[in-house]
Amino acid sequence: MINIAVLGYGTIGSGVVEVLKTNGDSIRKRAGDKINIKYVLDIREFPGDPIMDILVNDMNIILNDPEVKIVVEVMGGINPAYSFVKQALLKGKSVISSNKELVAKHGAELIDLAKERELNFLFEASVGGGIPIIRPLNQSLTADEIVEITGILNGTTNYILTKMSDEGIEFKEALKEAQDLGYAERDPSADVEGHDACRKIAILSSLAYGMQVDFEDIYTEGITNISHVDIMYAKALNTKIKLFATSIRENDENVYAMVAPMMISANHPLYSVGDVFNGIYVRGNVIGDVMFYGSGAGKLPTASAVVADIVDAAKHLNKNIWTIWSSKKLELIEIDKVRHRFFVRVAKNKNTLSDIQSLFGDVEDVAEVVKDEYAFITPLITEKEMKDMKENIIGLKGSIRIRF
Amino acid sequence: MINIAVLGYGTIGSGVVEVLKTNGDSIRKRAGDKINIKYVLDIREFPGDPIMDILVNDMNIILNDPEVKIVVEVMGGINPAYSFVKQALLKGKSVISSNKELVAKHGAELIDLAKERELNFLFEASVGGGIPIIRPLNQSLTADEIVEITGILNGTTNYILTKMSDEGIEFKEALKEAQDLGYAERDPSADVEGHDACRKIAILSSLAYGMQVDFEDIYTEGITNISHVDIMYAKALNTKIKLFATSIRENDENVYAMVAPMMISANHPLYSVGDVFNGIYVRGNVIGDVMFYGSGAGKLPTASAVVADIVDAAKHLNKNIWTIWSSKKLELIEIDKVRHRFFVRVAKNKNTLSDIQSLFGDVEDVAEVVKDEYAFITPLITEKEMKDMKENIIGLKGSIRIRF
Repeated sequence: MINIAVLGYGTIGSGVVEVLKTNGDSIRKRAGDKINIKYVLDIREFPGDPIMDILVNDMNIILNDPEVKIVVEVMGGINPAYSFVKQALLKGKSVISSNKELVAKHGAELIDLAKERELNFLFEASVGGGIPIIRPLNQSLTADEIVEITGILNGTTNYILTKMSDEGIEFKEALKEAQDLGYAERDPSADVEGHDACRKIAILSSLAYGMQVDFEDIYTEGITNISHVDIMYAKALNTKIKLFATSIRENDENVYAMVAPMMISANHPLYSVGDVFNGIYVRGNVIGDVMFYGSGAGKLPTASAVVADIVDAAKHLNKNIWTIWSSKKLELIEIDKVRHRFFVRVAKNKNTLSDIQSLFGDVEDVAEVVKDEYAFITPLITEKEMKDMKENIIGLKGSIRIRF
Repeated sequence: MINIAVLGYGTIGSGVVEVLKTNGDSIRKRAGDKINIKYVLDIREFPGDPIMDILVNDMNIILNDPEVKIVVEVMGGINPAYSFVKQALLKGKSVISSNKELVAKHGAELIDLAKERELNFLFEASVGGGIPIIRPLNQSLTADEIVEITGILNGTTNYILTKMSDEGIEFKEALKEAQDLGYAERDPSADVEGHDACRKIAILSSLAYGMQVDFEDIYTEGITNISHVDIMYAKALNTKIKLFATSIRENDENVYAMVAPMMISANHPLYSVGDVFNGIYVRGNVIGDVMFYGSGAGKLPTASAVVADIVDAAKHLNKNIWTIWSSKKLELIEIDKVRHRFFVRVAKNKNTLSDIQSLFGDVEDVAEVVKDEYAFITPLITEKEMKDMKENIIGLKGSIRIRF
């Protein structure tokens, strides 16, 4: 019997308890031993819930119990999660975490702590919910140099963009629907401003390139400026607008990373990732294109990933599973130097076609969908050039990066 | 330094040599040691090729060299691959194989042999080429009971079906194109009759359910009967025809497996898997839907999977990586009892609508695409019922299972 403790009895924590109960027999077979939840830590009470018998509110009880071999942190946030996880590792316990903030900020340090002690710090559920992506990056794509990793990593924004497209509604209306269905928080900024996706691409990039990618360095733009008209143009162009979290290695060590809406066409592997689903596209120098798809959030899919980590930790109680994520910082290319083509809309009454041509050069006209606007696609220009344009052009209605 | 031997210097074998050379530095970092190819076994000569220095044609040299820790079998076929692999394991060497025939037929035995000796028998490249699927099934989806695994597992047939659909051509013409491009063999039967996909779904099903699924038990139907007219109807119905290799657990222990063309709609995760790409869809009882996509064949993608296995074996030289695939046979549900809806076309001059209704019951009419034919969709009926219909109905033009 392997004793574990679950920190936090919220959505994911209760999902972990449920999955371990529902699939107990097959999990036991795969872990090689029974997984027993000895403690659940939460400061709340849960009257009538069977876990009341094992509920504790003092982390020291868990830290000081040598029988607890694996600690499962599903609380979220940095405090007190960071201190709890670190102490658990120092006390000789392996740790599983579903916490993207914690992993993005302190992943390298916690991996090192685990490695030094022949323990494990595993975090499959921190990115892509149930989708296996951390373990495949660590253990399956080991023959490759990763040259690109791009994900639709936030289910809320993907749901909103899908709704806007399917129902022809504006951002605010789609957001409200997402809130009503519980897909978006009352304060939706972490999702719609791209911060959640930013943490996740920081984690994936750190693993893909083996060095610390600081999420603060990643240019991040959300979907709040995407309008119904943008979506109409996207459809007319046979494309979709998706919030991409992406990092690309352009030459040997030159990586850039960004979170931003992108217009993509039907031949992109992530094109058909709709609703609340997530998808992660990886390009390696020998494997070519690979894509992983599934539920990026949700109680049971996320719990499935957490429990798979528990099984892995149980099979490797005294053996570290190698993860390459050095604390050495990867200096990203300055975003100003990155180049894209842009889809741009400007007011007709403020601009002539020759204004546009003199500003952007040889643009590709886009057939009119909305009156009183010119729409066009720019040549490949730098982010800096586009930023400057935005200051110079009058009556700019919108601009979206193009990835096709 | 970890010495390995590569058995077979064909497409994949030379790919393995190339990948180990191209990405040597990062592979060394991930394996924790340099991977050195000490021998390549082949009965052919390769004048001018650098591997001539390490080429041997006697397997005993490899078997009797205690320095060789890992043997990489990329020859294909059962003989002499099976005997070479077995002897290597008995001599204390871990084995990597890309050989679907070998793994489907002898996987359980070879896994056991490796397990007993704290060695490894790994075979990521045997299914889905470069796509990580074996390791995710073994190590990532461990919290789930798998209830379905369905793949587009054969790139050649997927290419042919995609061409038939894109270009409106018949099977024979598309096959010829595939042969001209080297995607199909001169004798294409292993691909187009479904035998290749059958081996692969046998392997995936054995891993998903943890018991031996014999490929001989799997009902297998290829794509040779799919016509241009079928594709026209599929398009009119907003569907695609794909060769599915599928196994479904309907209740606790009742699994059926089959390889057959299926009509699927745009909301199926495998709908957009086109050309020579492969996709594998897995449904678990807690994770829900997951899908893996990538190059299902090709020299470098397949070699990437082989080398990832080499890295894993190098990191686990004296530790078996647990694989649950017991030699106990899983008795599949008799195919006659499996139920599908079918898309059916019959000649108008041989049948009246009331004939059809009296045979099939409450059918769903499909708008006419081709003159002189009735097209319709049957209710859910068993394979046995459909088989009997085929004998009774005159002027049957085609029937395709529906998965939507």
